[in-house]
Amino acid sequence: MSFLIRNALLITANARDDIYQGDLRIEGNRIEEIGKVSGSADRALDATGLWVFPGFVQTHVHLCQTLFRGLADDLELLDWLQRRIWPLEAAHDEKSLYWSARLGIAELLKGGTTTVLSMETVRHTEEVFRAVEEAGIRAAAGKCIMDMGDAPAPLQEEGARAIEESLLLMKYWDGKSDGRIRYAFAPRFALSCSREVMEEVGRTAKASRTLIHTHSSENRKEVELVRQQTGYANVEYFHNMGLTTPNLFLAHCIWLNDREISILKETATRVTHCPGSNLKLASGIADITRYIKEGLKLSLGADGAACNNNLDMFQEMRLAALLQKTLHGPTALSAREVFRLATIEGARALHSENEIGSLEKGKRADLVVFDPRSASVWPHHDVYATLVYAGRPQNVKAVFVDGVLLVSDGKLAKHDEREILCKSAEALKQLLPRAEKWGFR
Amino acid sequence: MSFLIRNALLITANARDDIYQGDLRIEGNRIEEIGKVSGSADRALDATGLWVFPGFVQTHVHLCQTLFRGLADDLELLDWLQRRIWPLEAAHDEKSLYWSARLGIAELLKGGTTTVLSMETVRHTEEVFRAVEEAGIRAAAGKCIMDMGDAPAPLQEEGARAIEESLLLMKYWDGKSDGRIRYAFAPRFALSCSREVMEEVGRTAKASRTLIHTHSSENRKEVELVRQQTGYANVEYFHNMGLTTPNLFLAHCIWLNDREISILKETATRVTHCPGSNLKLASGIADITRYIKEGLKLSLGADGAACNNNLDMFQEMRLAALLQKTLHGPTALSAREVFRLATIEGARALHSENEIGSLEKGKRADLVVFDPRSASVWPHHDVYATLVYAGRPQNVKAVFVDGVLLVSDGKLAKHDEREILCKSAEALKQLLPRAEKWGFR
Repeated sequence: MSFLIRNALLITANARDDIYQGDLRIEGNRIEEIGKVSGSADRALDATGLWVFPGFVQTHVHLCQTLFRGLADDLELLDWLQRRIWPLEAAHDEKSLYWSARLGIAELLKGGTTTVLSMETVRHTEEVFRAVEEAGIRAAAGKCIMDMGDAPAPLQEEGARAIEESLLLMKYWDGKSDGRIRYAFAPRFALSCSREVMEEVGRTAKASRTLIHTHSSENRKEVELVRQQTGYANVEYFHNMGLTTPNLFLAHCIWLNDREISILKETATRVTHCPGSNLKLASGIADITRYIKEGLKLSLGADGAACNNNLDMFQEMRLAALLQKTLHGPTALSAREVFRLATIEGARALHSENEIGSLEKGKRADLVVFDPRSASVWPHHDVYATLVYAGRPQNVKAVFVDGVLLVSDGKLAKHDEREILCKSAEALKQLLPRAEKWGFR
Repeated sequence: MSFLIRNALLITANARDDIYQGDLRIEGNRIEEIGKVSGSADRALDATGLWVFPGFVQTHVHLCQTLFRGLADDLELLDWLQRRIWPLEAAHDEKSLYWSARLGIAELLKGGTTTVLSMETVRHTEEVFRAVEEAGIRAAAGKCIMDMGDAPAPLQEEGARAIEESLLLMKYWDGKSDGRIRYAFAPRFALSCSREVMEEVGRTAKASRTLIHTHSSENRKEVELVRQQTGYANVEYFHNMGLTTPNLFLAHCIWLNDREISILKETATRVTHCPGSNLKLASGIADITRYIKEGLKLSLGADGAACNNNLDMFQEMRLAALLQKTLHGPTALSAREVFRLATIEGARALHSENEIGSLEKGKRADLVVFDPRSASVWPHHDVYATLVYAGRPQNVKAVFVDGVLLVSDGKLAKHDEREILCKSAEALKQLLPRAEKWGFR
């Protein structure tokens, strides 16, 4: 299938941040022409008055938690995990996990997010991959590894078994759907994983050049416990185990000391900033202005619906920008910079900058058609300021992933959203009694 | 015209915070029956699966600034005023002001806001009232009074003339449209008004029992300048002039000393919290948890589109809740409390709690029909948490003000949004060269 998007304002996020009026032709799953287009296409979209930009890349979400939106409000990280999230995750079965992922993907796509890095729960991770395959989003995901701590039984397993299952999932799913699906190891965080399993994940990921996706330095109490248990600050601990490489993603990184910042810089370890989740769990405000200045590899994510409670990249961009003003004054972190974090920098963090993250000839056709003709974003001057400070999912008109039109006229184009709502509500209803058994209160 | 809304979840915001499934009948401009309804109506809306709640009340906006969205980003309060907002306001003519107000009202209504307290600019205020009259929102507004400081000439006038014009506007507009339109005196802030004019506003407002709407303690530099010029802290200054009464609205109140908090409490002076604007201008985070504990009379507002850049009460509710968690931990300020600030407390602040702010028999029919059947708010448990943490203007299906259906199926029901966009863009294009003359840079 080929598509011709005619006469749009193209916000490219390329190296020169080019913005210009033009056409864009999608052939198969790639952008075949951009600017002046000569070829024809099966379908044409008149985008006069509309904007087109690369799909958002969120480098920290939990699709498995979408079903728990509103079930874990007003709690601090460790309580939030122990009293709500772990019992809920422990209660997931195939069906509930599948619909949780489908629900999250529906929200993500309708809000212009085309790629996610997602940490799943311990079991049934194949259901998330199945949901990703069917729903059409681009995703790197992995089963959560937990071989330590006080989580309910279904979330506990031996390290060797966890690695073995990770490898099986990787073997089956990594590279599927023409590379749209990738595997990423997902040890939960230092407090849920033994040193042995962390080191083994490090070795295995290195050998297979696979991403590792974990949490670090989100909460002061967590940082203190990690120091008590390991003798190290969080990032120093990862560094000491040899995990800090350009393939490691650390979500949050709010509470870092100078040495940890140096390590992240020297090793090009990836940091995902999650401002919405950090506010909601009262974790703190990461000083990303400093991180950017120091040259850390930064991108953005909404985290899970259970701690945000949206998976809306417009909101994360706005919060990222606004919170830095609180720390560094009104001129901190320009809207253009934030937009780059949400697109090309996310792609770069995932080592996919040659495939996605900007509108350029030859890249995968992952893009958003945005309608700026709405009272809430009107008038507009700087396009970045409009997107970051005023943009909303409501303005997302169409979304393509890998050349496939997944959102059209603001609605899911290939699936019935009502069915997703019904099925996920039904699955949640069956899940809750099980969660109570695992200590949900 | 009478309307019957059938089988909705009614989120009443009444004194018991009742939430129940039922019908609601609007007769003329009032809620005639609620719960079990016996009467019939001209039009019926099947609201099965939908939620109905009282329209949001924003007690600090500037309709005159909607046209300046995106024209004053990344600046601190005093620069923002002097380099951008004042030159832009000085350049307003009748047409630009009218369309600025229409644009703002369109966004407000589509986002579920049914009542605003708005500070306008110095001239042409009748155009804002005309826009309010025609567009159907409930509003208290007033011409801005500035008789001091370094604003451009069109914003400067003698105090006596300013009061005289305020009184003329009040005489003509106050109480119009069956009480939907009210007048509120609007001296800009301590640095723009002489003591004489402030005192005269105080006397005049007292005699006519009219609201006074001003800014206070938004920015540290402003607070310092007020102290230099008057010898007082901001609120002490207003108190010393006899202005602190239940009819005075102070927007922002971020930087208060203990004495000022006591004054606000003792005098029941109204405080409007504007978290979005406060973040964007890097003004600080008001400790409203403390203000609520101390018993201050608090409500919410988005401020203007030039410093927010949205007029979206869902976003202000979410930010209000999230920012308090930053100050006081994850359990600070419940979603229910925030929802009340956005509805009944706003009404109470305006002394309109017997007319609006909750769904109760006999009150004006100002209400929102919200569709929670959308991936981004699904699933839902606590309705307040859903509205505050996940709700969006996108979920607003219908809005009534004074019994009139103004938003239907998410769109303006009585006006053409495209026309508002075109006319406001045209007016802005003509305004900008004038603004440059007044120092816009």
